[in-house]
Amino acid sequence: MNGAESLVKTLLASDIEVCFANPGTSEMHFVAALDRVPGMRCVLGLFEGVVTGAADGYGRMAGKPASTLLHLGPGLANGIANLHNARKARTPVLNIVGEHASDHLRYESPLRSDVPATAALISDWYKVGSGPGIVDDAAEAVQAARSRDGQIATLILPADTAWGPGASPKAAPEPLPLARADAAGIAQAVAAIRSGKRVAILATGKALEEAGLALLGRLQRGGVRIHAQQSNRRFARGRGRLIVPRVPFSIEQGVEFLKDVEVLILVGSHPPAAFFGYPDKPRMLSQPGCVTIPLLEPGGDALHTLQWLVDELGQGGPAVAVPEVAAPAAPTSDALNADTLMQAMAALLPEHAILVDESVSSGRSLFKFTDGAAPHDYLQITGGSIGSGLPMATGASVACPDRKVVCFEGDGSGMYTLQALWTQAREQLDVVTVILANRSYRILHGELAGVGITNPGEQAHRMLDLNAPELDWVALARGQGVEARRVDTVSGFVDVFRAACAAKGPFVIEAVIP
Amino acid sequence: MNGAESLVKTLLASDIEVCFANPGTSEMHFVAALDRVPGMRCVLGLFEGVVTGAADGYGRMAGKPASTLLHLGPGLANGIANLHNARKARTPVLNIVGEHASDHLRYESPLRSDVPATAALISDWYKVGSGPGIVDDAAEAVQAARSRDGQIATLILPADTAWGPGASPKAAPEPLPLARADAAGIAQAVAAIRSGKRVAILATGKALEEAGLALLGRLQRGGVRIHAQQSNRRFARGRGRLIVPRVPFSIEQGVEFLKDVEVLILVGSHPPAAFFGYPDKPRMLSQPGCVTIPLLEPGGDALHTLQWLVDELGQGGPAVAVPEVAAPAAPTSDALNADTLMQAMAALLPEHAILVDESVSSGRSLFKFTDGAAPHDYLQITGGSIGSGLPMATGASVACPDRKVVCFEGDGSGMYTLQALWTQAREQLDVVTVILANRSYRILHGELAGVGITNPGEQAHRMLDLNAPELDWVALARGQGVEARRVDTVSGFVDVFRAACAAKGPFVIEAVIP
Repeated sequence: MNGAESLVKTLLASDIEVCFANPGTSEMHFVAALDRVPGMRCVLGLFEGVVTGAADGYGRMAGKPASTLLHLGPGLANGIANLHNARKARTPVLNIVGEHASDHLRYESPLRSDVPATAALISDWYKVGSGPGIVDDAAEAVQAARSRDGQIATLILPADTAWGPGASPKAAPEPLPLARADAAGIAQAVAAIRSGKRVAILATGKALEEAGLALLGRLQRGGVRIHAQQSNRRFARGRGRLIVPRVPFSIEQGVEFLKDVEVLILVGSHPPAAFFGYPDKPRMLSQPGCVTIPLLEPGGDALHTLQWLVDELGQGGPAVAVPEVAAPAAPTSDALNADTLMQAMAALLPEHAILVDESVSSGRSLFKFTDGAAPHDYLQITGGSIGSGLPMATGASVACPDRKVVCFEGDGSGMYTLQALWTQAREQLDVVTVILANRSYRILHGELAGVGITNPGEQAHRMLDLNAPELDWVALARGQGVEARRVDTVSGFVDVFRAACAAKGPFVIEAVIP
Repeated sequence: MNGAESLVKTLLASDIEVCFANPGTSEMHFVAALDRVPGMRCVLGLFEGVVTGAADGYGRMAGKPASTLLHLGPGLANGIANLHNARKARTPVLNIVGEHASDHLRYESPLRSDVPATAALISDWYKVGSGPGIVDDAAEAVQAARSRDGQIATLILPADTAWGPGASPKAAPEPLPLARADAAGIAQAVAAIRSGKRVAILATGKALEEAGLALLGRLQRGGVRIHAQQSNRRFARGRGRLIVPRVPFSIEQGVEFLKDVEVLILVGSHPPAAFFGYPDKPRMLSQPGCVTIPLLEPGGDALHTLQWLVDELGQGGPAVAVPEVAAPAAPTSDALNADTLMQAMAALLPEHAILVDESVSSGRSLFKFTDGAAPHDYLQITGGSIGSGLPMATGASVACPDRKVVCFEGDGSGMYTLQALWTQAREQLDVVTVILANRSYRILHGELAGVGITNPGEQAHRMLDLNAPELDWVALARGQGVEARRVDTVSGFVDVFRAACAAKGPFVIEAVIP
């Protein structure tokens, strides 16, 4: 048994079942081991941004890491952007990155680069594996990926470790214990809540999945406002779930949203900073006088913290009934725009769908339409690094083959990683992608106005507009083996979306909107 | 005048004429400045790998840097792979990377990452610009990009430096003086050449452009074997140019190629190491007993070194007439495969075309067909990081709008950065792309066999084959506004390629080969 085989067996023994891969020469021993050792589902991505973004989507829905398989420094570098999103989300991901044979690194060769430094950029844990100890390294890597509520662990696999002698595989140890709130913090939070001041909890992570929402509902009943970060890993949404408003993206709206909050309790979340800094706007969305209580650090045990608060506040009685919200109605107008599109989608969303959202500027009002939609999980871009949606939908579908995945994707961001559609075709994943084709980086028009340019010139238009030529997403999808249709009316969208949801397999809808 | 405007003016004063861009919010002041300050050609890429690969192609053909414009850490990260190729080629590139406002970095925000560490990974020079000193920083950055025969220089532009007060623009100082060979090295090389031993020069960089080839021809007349590195920035090739064989890619062929060489003189090149290390193969392609003379370091003044050698060897007389090579003939068979395709292309290659080659496994025999083709410049992938071809062709065409660009691209590598086709359509670039559609990562089948797997199993096939579904490159091109045709015979290719070369503007030929 060589090192690659003992590595694959260690991954399998550690409950790693899926490998999103784009291998190269240095990974051939690993690929050969995948052939010899049954049990790993291998999913090929035609670009590494697809591979890492799919691992993000998988980890969010499976609640455990997938492995990636990446080729040397440039392969890892191509995956950085979506690892950045995964890291901000605290998604567990285990990267296996091939490296030159150890005794080849002394020579200058085309693919030589600093793989450890590349891994350091984007990993919470990384190590260069070595010899038969690769099984210990891999077990430690899996443990790291699963610790602190999800981390990026990167194991670098030199070719000579892969082809050299292996060792008996082992299972990864349990994740390290999660950080917890302490009694002083709980006392401070409880005192604030009982003080009569306007107190809000800012939550993220597991607090926004079903068990967390049930606890948050009890705290809301106890008089606390409940908010979510702007960006979150996974959010249980729709009929029957507590409605938790997110801090808005725009600084003006964010400041307005938080202006009454006198005490802000952070449960695994970061202080609500602006997405970007601007010349004459605040950097922090909460008021300067707002008292912030960092009750639980990011990556800590949110459910434990919330339960403790519930107990201290005496809210442990009967479960909270979530007020009914009207099911979304179909739009009355046939004019397709971002709002009517989302409204129509919300009315038709299948039960227990996974809704992946990288609609960027178009999607900011999505929640108002989906509060009363069928129960679903909502996954969004978390690190602002565009190109996350199509791969995330791909990985989410691999994790949950029995659930419909609906992906709302901007045309500009979709172009970053459009190769994900091929993987959806190859794996026959049940994903309906809606491309919001507004033919521009629309968000940047707003940002340009934000820096005082309300009448952009020729150069700015050429940098922000995606017309001339227009992208044909039907062709781009079909060229990768995915069936597709273009729509430009609400009724057209409704017909195509309903049919796509009723069928199985990947489908792309290019929705032309202003 | 704000910082962004004084930066743009400094770039223009420093002969930076083209900016390949994918901007985001933090770069809006720079975009606004491009509107206000005329003179910069801005070229949008829909993914940063397109942006940096185009800057590589531009720099190779223009002999001076273009600027890129990239958005924060993830935008730069997306560009790393093609910057890796550019760096290995010693292409001059100037990256402008937007960064959060300085006083916003203290907060955790979705797009916060370590931009300087990302820049350090891939840059020969980098700096965080600051305040009105941005003009000095920019001038220094341009100088750095132009020094040492081409470097990657990365200037990080915090948003508050862009929107803050600027300063009078300045022109970049001259590049730093190039390193030169020393007299002892020249004496050693000349002694070796006169010793009667079998001596070879291994050249790269400017030695392979026209002036360098003329000098190499004189040295060949003086009894020296002349070879090129496997990967080179730019190579003057075809009728009337000295034929300089490259060290082969495969270890067996490389060792055979160099086995008689007793003394190897490195002129700006690296020792001929293998591309990868394998269990039972040598790491170095030259013989263990071969004496290596590192006459000129990489990035040094190759023309000066070669001229000095010519003078010392008394080869300064009349220019060397290059032996005539038969013009390539059209293939006699109509069966399309990698060889007949290249042969047919070589016979039809327009005069002074730029031939961009990322055909990977299919292209290894290209030179034998193009030795006698019309004079052309040959650009190849230099860092082994696939996805370089389509962007490189894009940038080369921006640099040389009056020359036809022909790009030979593998289907697997082409998918990495297919978004370059949209830029070709937007800019109406005169590029004919030939996709070698063998429906696989063919090179990896060979590598898998190289590690002893001659009968790959299901998993390996799924990782290495691009069928199921097949990519439709005609649709992928048309979806981005580029006209395209599929061919599967030599005669079909000849007809379409001839017509595409006769017309102006972008065109894609999907050549289906076994």
